[in-house]
Amino acid sequence: MDVLKAIKLRRSIRRFKKGGVSKDIVKRILEAGRWAPSGLNNQPWRFMVLEGDNKDGLSRYTHYSSIIKGADKVILVFLDKKDSYNYEKDLMAIGSCVQNMLLYVHSQKLGACWLGEILNKRKEISKFLRLSSNLELEAVVALGKPLKGKDKGARKSLKSLVVRV
Amino acid sequence: MDVLKAIKLRRSIRRFKKGGVSKDIVKRILEAGRWAPSGLNNQPWRFMVLEGDNKDGLSRYTHYSSIIKGADKVILVFLDKKDSYNYEKDLMAIGSCVQNMLLYVHSQKLGACWLGEILNKRKEISKFLRLSSNLELEAVVALGKPLKGKDKGARKSLKSLVVRV
Repeated sequence: MDVLKAIKLRRSIRRFKKGGVSKDIVKRILEAGRWAPSGLNNQPWRFMVLEGDNKDGLSRYTHYSSIIKGADKVILVFLDKKDSYNYEKDLMAIGSCVQNMLLYVHSQKLGACWLGEILNKRKEISKFLRLSSNLELEAVVALGKPLKGKDKGARKSLKSLVVRV
Repeated sequence: MDVLKAIKLRRSIRRFKKGGVSKDIVKRILEAGRWAPSGLNNQPWRFMVLEGDNKDGLSRYTHYSSIIKGADKVILVFLDKKDSYNYEKDLMAIGSCVQNMLLYVHSQKLGACWLGEILNKRKEISKFLRLSSNLELEAVVALGKPLKGKDKGARKSLKSLVVRV
């Protein structure tokens, strides 16, 4: 799929059909994330893939539990603080990594939703998953086959975003 | 250009040929950035495009001034603090926005370099450009026609990035 088309037509998908995201596809999604740029190429991202009971267990930690329960799999993205060199830049790098994954997912006609509110329960999730203390949860991406048509999407006009010198 | 191909073959380009990034292309680059996802769709990014003397003036604020001087144009990406709802999530959204632009640039056979070290001189740059106080510089993207072949790129193995439950 063409890059600009993928960028402009990708949408958050919150409802999914049953099944359908193979291990091979998940591997290629992570591969897309892995090739993101980062400051000093420090690659501070780490991934965890959850499905089944572990995935459903995670759904307790968000108001959007139905998205996680309905998803075939979820990818958790962590900042590895041992590889951090600048927190702000690391977060931008992780945003870039997540966007790579979302674009690849869309290009495969699959759907994804980037969940943020769940970060409010980082500490509890860290206990639930027995994470080592260097891993800080930054993003959760729910994955699956899209249930139905996508919304139109809304963005501010380009004019309103450009600052003149 | 195919999404995964663009993701895997994009590289930072630090040396450029003269000229060559039309206003139309710049508009489409910003358009790619504009369609990034953000928390609550708050779209906290703002853009400024510099060329000529303004661009060269900016080069004083980084050790990598040759990249900025050699570039045809640079795009500055700001966080508009008036539209912020969560600083961490805003930074990830901006990372996602920058990655959209980098991928589109690459798909057009142009080159770009995402500069980070220049953020050390935020305050001075804010004065130089007479920015309003709600705009915080987060990224600078140098743009131009690539001078020569790209490097191979190096990334950690996927295996080393995946955390098991």
